[in-house]
Amino acid sequence: MIHSVGEDLTKGLSYKAVKVSVGIVGCGVVGTGTVKLLLTNREILRKKTGIDFQLTKVADLNWERKREFEVPEELRTTDYREVIESCDIVVELVGGKEFAKKLMLEALESGRHVVTANKHLLALDGEEIFLKAQEKGLRVGFEASVGGGIPVIKALREGLVGNRIETIYGILNGTTNYILTRMFEENLDFESALREASEKGYAEADPSLDIDGWDAAHKINILASLAFGRYFPFEEVHVEGIRNIQKLDVELGKELGYTLKLLAIAKRFDGEAEVRVHPTFIHSEEALAKVSGVYNAVMIEGDFVGKTMFYGQGAGSLPTASAVVSDIVDAGIAIVSGNGGEVTPVDWESEPVKVRRNFFSRYYLRFDVPDKPGVLAAISRVLADFNISIAAVLQKEMVCQLAGKRGEPVVPLVILTHKAYEQDVQSALKEIRELPVVVGEPVLIRVEEEAE
Amino acid sequence: MIHSVGEDLTKGLSYKAVKVSVGIVGCGVVGTGTVKLLLTNREILRKKTGIDFQLTKVADLNWERKREFEVPEELRTTDYREVIESCDIVVELVGGKEFAKKLMLEALESGRHVVTANKHLLALDGEEIFLKAQEKGLRVGFEASVGGGIPVIKALREGLVGNRIETIYGILNGTTNYILTRMFEENLDFESALREASEKGYAEADPSLDIDGWDAAHKINILASLAFGRYFPFEEVHVEGIRNIQKLDVELGKELGYTLKLLAIAKRFDGEAEVRVHPTFIHSEEALAKVSGVYNAVMIEGDFVGKTMFYGQGAGSLPTASAVVSDIVDAGIAIVSGNGGEVTPVDWESEPVKVRRNFFSRYYLRFDVPDKPGVLAAISRVLADFNISIAAVLQKEMVCQLAGKRGEPVVPLVILTHKAYEQDVQSALKEIRELPVVVGEPVLIRVEEEAE
Repeated sequence: MIHSVGEDLTKGLSYKAVKVSVGIVGCGVVGTGTVKLLLTNREILRKKTGIDFQLTKVADLNWERKREFEVPEELRTTDYREVIESCDIVVELVGGKEFAKKLMLEALESGRHVVTANKHLLALDGEEIFLKAQEKGLRVGFEASVGGGIPVIKALREGLVGNRIETIYGILNGTTNYILTRMFEENLDFESALREASEKGYAEADPSLDIDGWDAAHKINILASLAFGRYFPFEEVHVEGIRNIQKLDVELGKELGYTLKLLAIAKRFDGEAEVRVHPTFIHSEEALAKVSGVYNAVMIEGDFVGKTMFYGQGAGSLPTASAVVSDIVDAGIAIVSGNGGEVTPVDWESEPVKVRRNFFSRYYLRFDVPDKPGVLAAISRVLADFNISIAAVLQKEMVCQLAGKRGEPVVPLVILTHKAYEQDVQSALKEIRELPVVVGEPVLIRVEEEAE
Repeated sequence: MIHSVGEDLTKGLSYKAVKVSVGIVGCGVVGTGTVKLLLTNREILRKKTGIDFQLTKVADLNWERKREFEVPEELRTTDYREVIESCDIVVELVGGKEFAKKLMLEALESGRHVVTANKHLLALDGEEIFLKAQEKGLRVGFEASVGGGIPVIKALREGLVGNRIETIYGILNGTTNYILTRMFEENLDFESALREASEKGYAEADPSLDIDGWDAAHKINILASLAFGRYFPFEEVHVEGIRNIQKLDVELGKELGYTLKLLAIAKRFDGEAEVRVHPTFIHSEEALAKVSGVYNAVMIEGDFVGKTMFYGQGAGSLPTASAVVSDIVDAGIAIVSGNGGEVTPVDWESEPVKVRRNFFSRYYLRFDVPDKPGVLAAISRVLADFNISIAAVLQKEMVCQLAGKRGEPVVPLVILTHKAYEQDVQSALKEIRELPVVVGEPVLIRVEEEAE
């Protein structure tokens, strides 16, 4: 280890400080923000922690591209090994899977603590990385992997450590939340809202990781693993994105008092756990419904604390840097005190998680039907056969003209159910689809009640 | 020290565990909740932390009174010294000042870590207690002193450690928030809402600590000290309660798009800091305006993270126990690792805080005036003389009949200002009070814009 614990920097200072060195691999948006924070707030960090965090090297393959903050010439390198050699704490901000994994394993192997924002990698290969860290007695900080600047990992592992966590609801992806907010507020269709998000720089050139729900799924998988105390297998996460959301459903939901969000959900009951990401209606008066634009929020419910919510900027250079630095500080304290200092191991539950696929939820169902007698009776008959109870019905007089199977005009019929089992609802839909009165594909959107 | 670090409890278990012992002094609402948590979730705590937290003794003077959870006979004592003797971590939950202080100093003196929920004591005598802890190399955990179950102290000290904290806005007192919520939603007057709060058990027999703003002031003083890195002198906190709030102002504010909250504010700018608690109008669309009933919320703004918000139950047996236990766990880890492990000392800033008394805010001003020509001109003339710019005016046609000085009917005239200095506003009010057209005492309520 290179750090100089015990080196006394108190000369002329009113406080003690020891040095800990930090290197960064990957100087994109978050990397640049982290460099800026470490250099700008170095003094305030030193005062708060008694540790002087010294940035030694920053690796990136491209030093030509324009950045929001200029990385001092002498810190730049294109060789990640030079970063590892130079420091006590390696910050991995390259993203992606293969190289990031190789880098993290190499850093741990050589005795460096690691800090990362890489949700993709952790959701898929977290176990391997954490096991390596455990083997070496080192930390892997990942506060920045979920919720940008919101210290939600720390809250879950430390602040709420006394609780059995029952439920997590998260708005964990800013891009999709921006799109849904614009669809809700301005009555845009999906394509227009996506175009707007791209123009504002909120959507990637290839936005599929965001809009198809994968980014949120990586994040909720990390939170679920922490909450349930076992690595939740990523392939068991149910993932649906917002690509097929029609503005008609956003409008009709709004009329019924609901706001559409891409919700990431982890729930546990009766010894089973479900983890899922899908477009979800939540009551417009609930706190999560008010989380708009690129903000993120996570609602965590524990057996003692009840309902708590954490809110902030879920992405962006500076907020994410704030999270990265909180992990750097924790690693620095671990170094100085000679203590791993992990409060909660990721994997503490001895029993495997039983995965529940048959969700128990409320449902918004939309059918396009001709405006004729007997339609509602036919559909509600099938629902009753499957034990699905109806909470509300909304049939609008020609909200829009939809061309029916045989060219006749159809109207949207919305049924809001009470809680029902997913399998029953899917079976009912299969039968309803076959009814001659139903035109096209029924729409299913789950409805969650935050306050139950 | 009594703890048995290194004692291996792994026999038959899939994880390691060492024992750390915990004693509690004060078995009221929070004490009982903490006993319940430590006993109910002992196994889950052991799995998460590798530490077996063993409750040794609980002291209270009255074991006859009915509690929500039965404390096992063998743990009960009436002698606080027996608690100190029995454990590694002493939890102070007696409240009040003198005895709590004596107890905490004795516990620290004898080498025990301390955990407390006592905001009153910490706001007034925190420095003495923290200095003693520092001298002995021990921790004083106080997560439960602010925001009940919300892990806001941890967020401020650790999660947001990389930030210079610029602003804190908090709804920190559940009693007053319940009262104001009822006044806002149900159009109640203060007395009726207070009576309702008492009936529901949300207000103490003597509610003055809550409704006069002192409880919120203790809490914001703690947060401000952490944010600014220096003990903020409690006598410099500006405190106003909600006792004199009239329902007319709640109504008129609502009409202008504002919600009235008892806001606790700590702000820093231009090298000066202000800490204040007073009834405050905030825009009804802002997140804090939606925090209703007995919930608490804290909005923290840092230079890197931007705006974050933390929300949850600000009081109550079980949520507060959740916070107490997070401190117990941190102390337990410190014991096991032989490391104080404090991330941020309370007092890290070398420069003293310059206290700012001349707030810079927006103002809601209400004057009772006769419905005659020239009134608005006279008042706005004075405001202009003091450089106070008017943002909005609302004069209602006889919202209510108010008896004027000479018995003539008067109407409420509301002026919403742009940002102005408190001293200018107070001087202007002094002059306006002397105007013959103004009847009775003008009403002043500050208006804060969360999103600036």
